[in-house]
Amino acid sequence: MTRTQVGIVGAGPAGLMLSHLLSLNGIDSVVIDNRTRAEIENTVRAGILEADSARLLAGTGVSDRVLREGHPHEGIDLRFGGESHRVDFRALVGESVWLYPQTDVFVDLANARERDGGDVRFGVSDTSVDITQPAIRFTDSDGVPQEVRCDLLVGADGSRSICRAEVPEALRRHSSREYPFAWFGIITEAPRSAPELVYAHSPRGFALISQRTETHQRMYFQCAPETKAATWSDDRIWEELQERVAGPDGFTLNEGPITEKTVLRFRSFVAEPMRHGKLLLAGDAAHTVPPTGAKGLNLALADVSVLSEVIERALLKNDPDALDEYGPRALERVWKAQHFSYWMTTMLHALPGATDFDVRRQLGELASVVGSEAGSRYLAEGYTGCRPA
Amino acid sequence: MTRTQVGIVGAGPAGLMLSHLLSLNGIDSVVIDNRTRAEIENTVRAGILEADSARLLAGTGVSDRVLREGHPHEGIDLRFGGESHRVDFRALVGESVWLYPQTDVFVDLANARERDGGDVRFGVSDTSVDITQPAIRFTDSDGVPQEVRCDLLVGADGSRSICRAEVPEALRRHSSREYPFAWFGIITEAPRSAPELVYAHSPRGFALISQRTETHQRMYFQCAPETKAATWSDDRIWEELQERVAGPDGFTLNEGPITEKTVLRFRSFVAEPMRHGKLLLAGDAAHTVPPTGAKGLNLALADVSVLSEVIERALLKNDPDALDEYGPRALERVWKAQHFSYWMTTMLHALPGATDFDVRRQLGELASVVGSEAGSRYLAEGYTGCRPA
Repeated sequence: MTRTQVGIVGAGPAGLMLSHLLSLNGIDSVVIDNRTRAEIENTVRAGILEADSARLLAGTGVSDRVLREGHPHEGIDLRFGGESHRVDFRALVGESVWLYPQTDVFVDLANARERDGGDVRFGVSDTSVDITQPAIRFTDSDGVPQEVRCDLLVGADGSRSICRAEVPEALRRHSSREYPFAWFGIITEAPRSAPELVYAHSPRGFALISQRTETHQRMYFQCAPETKAATWSDDRIWEELQERVAGPDGFTLNEGPITEKTVLRFRSFVAEPMRHGKLLLAGDAAHTVPPTGAKGLNLALADVSVLSEVIERALLKNDPDALDEYGPRALERVWKAQHFSYWMTTMLHALPGATDFDVRRQLGELASVVGSEAGSRYLAEGYTGCRPA
Repeated sequence: MTRTQVGIVGAGPAGLMLSHLLSLNGIDSVVIDNRTRAEIENTVRAGILEADSARLLAGTGVSDRVLREGHPHEGIDLRFGGESHRVDFRALVGESVWLYPQTDVFVDLANARERDGGDVRFGVSDTSVDITQPAIRFTDSDGVPQEVRCDLLVGADGSRSICRAEVPEALRRHSSREYPFAWFGIITEAPRSAPELVYAHSPRGFALISQRTETHQRMYFQCAPETKAATWSDDRIWEELQERVAGPDGFTLNEGPITEKTVLRFRSFVAEPMRHGKLLLAGDAAHTVPPTGAKGLNLALADVSVLSEVIERALLKNDPDALDEYGPRALERVWKAQHFSYWMTTMLHALPGATDFDVRRQLGELASVVGSEAGSRYLAEGYTGCRPA
């Protein structure tokens, strides 16, 4: 049996960052995850970090690798009617976002926890939690049953959270929205097609032209949710992607071998309360967003920033009511981000059953947004998470 | 038989304003309408004029009554979660809108046309148009058959336009969207409840608290489209309206006798092309919007501003291609206004079938808009039709 102050289920970015932030205040934690470290490292996820997220990583001593190896993106292209319209974040809100894969965020955090002597147990199994006498029980990677007793229990265990399930049904308020489409994602071995992310509206549906490295690029296009990625040939994928970005300006994608094909389904989801007694939920365990606004990782990091602060006050400053602040403060940001993600999604995707009116209204909206400094800045604020002072 | 340069079907604000603007350039027109002048004057319509619309009336010599008797509104209140949030148009975009009933716009225009010797024939019947040898045929109010031959024919004859029907079906592109709700509108004999318009989001649905005069006020609340206005008692109406604006700040409506009860249905609609040969469509004949954004009258006046300019070039400067510009130029504004009206509508109304997520996302959106200078300004630009220089 181990005793710690904060037991954290889930060693993704939310759980590890929380453990890191707590340790800076001298608060002990134990983090467990069913996945091995290698499994998490091999989970490829998008990586657009808000400036505040990058600052959190670099400024709290996790790593400054994001600033050295990440790519600052000072804007995005909104592409519609076959033309690109740059939304210049730097000019509009004075900030960039950072292209930096979520995997690298994880690696940085895992390394930092190891460096600082953090207690992180990967590859455990049979995990269960007790929220009344707070504890995590599991079998460790050596097959030995373990129990971690703690003062507070944090569920940072992703969208299929087992911690969330411990909130009594009568007290739960789960809100969600399904989307009648998914994203077909590829990684291709090819040079970049554009310096920044291109969000493309087209009659055939949405496409996102993203980047990873000098040699490997990530691209997505809207597809039916039941699409089987493996049945699509490279040729068919390229044809579809090229069609979605085609325009009189002659923009075309640099093609190359496709090394990965996956279909990504998503939904909007919020679980409330984010706190129940000594249980606190953070990141995907509490909310998921469609990927269009690139908010998922950033919301998780924003959650644990608030959470570490209230836990510090609760445990070190004898202010147990501090925990009451967590949900309301986190949720204010969550619902704005939910709206932003929904907005980007519905503005850019072909909506099944959309009429001619609906499509042209979308184009009217896109024209309004890029044609107005205020509209562009409102979008830039949502995307970067920054508001000019 | 009468000969004129421009034959205009419809003596609402669009038709009369066009006739007025053309006359300033020495271009003759004849305007006809099936309705009598008294009928049009008794059609009560909302009246929020963009600053440019007020300037058009006052600056082109129609009347400066809007500036003397209209009420400048320097903002609106967005009310949600039981709290009001002012959107300050003056501060955001440097302009006001004007509360000035559409009926008064009509009266000013009809008087101006009469004063300036304009040829306007009210109360005609059996109207038909010929778009190949442009002509309007009708029976005048004295029962005498008449024919007006013209160089150009303008359909400013409202949402049930007979002119629009002359565009061959194969060439027409009609786009529309229905809304699963309507507005229950009342006029009440009571003092104002608020100095400016209040757009209220509530769990029971949208409400709009508007004003007319010192003694009579206009209010609306979202209702089912099939609602029968006459079956609602005054008490029930007040209860519903009060519920929709209730909040911890104690805001309540000043009640009084209800002198009018109507159910207003609406849709979004755009007819293209706006020009077919010598036929040109303007105002409601070409497009209608839900009333939430108060764009209808303003779009009609914007249409005829463009139209008078291209007609002048076509008829006086021997530049027949000028007419080609009309549709594209007008439609750019139309689609932005369609989006704005749709946005205001869907952000503020209770959408049948909405889930908990949908409602709270709306609240997240409203909080984002009022919490951001850019978001508020983007809304103010749409509402006032102004963009800061």
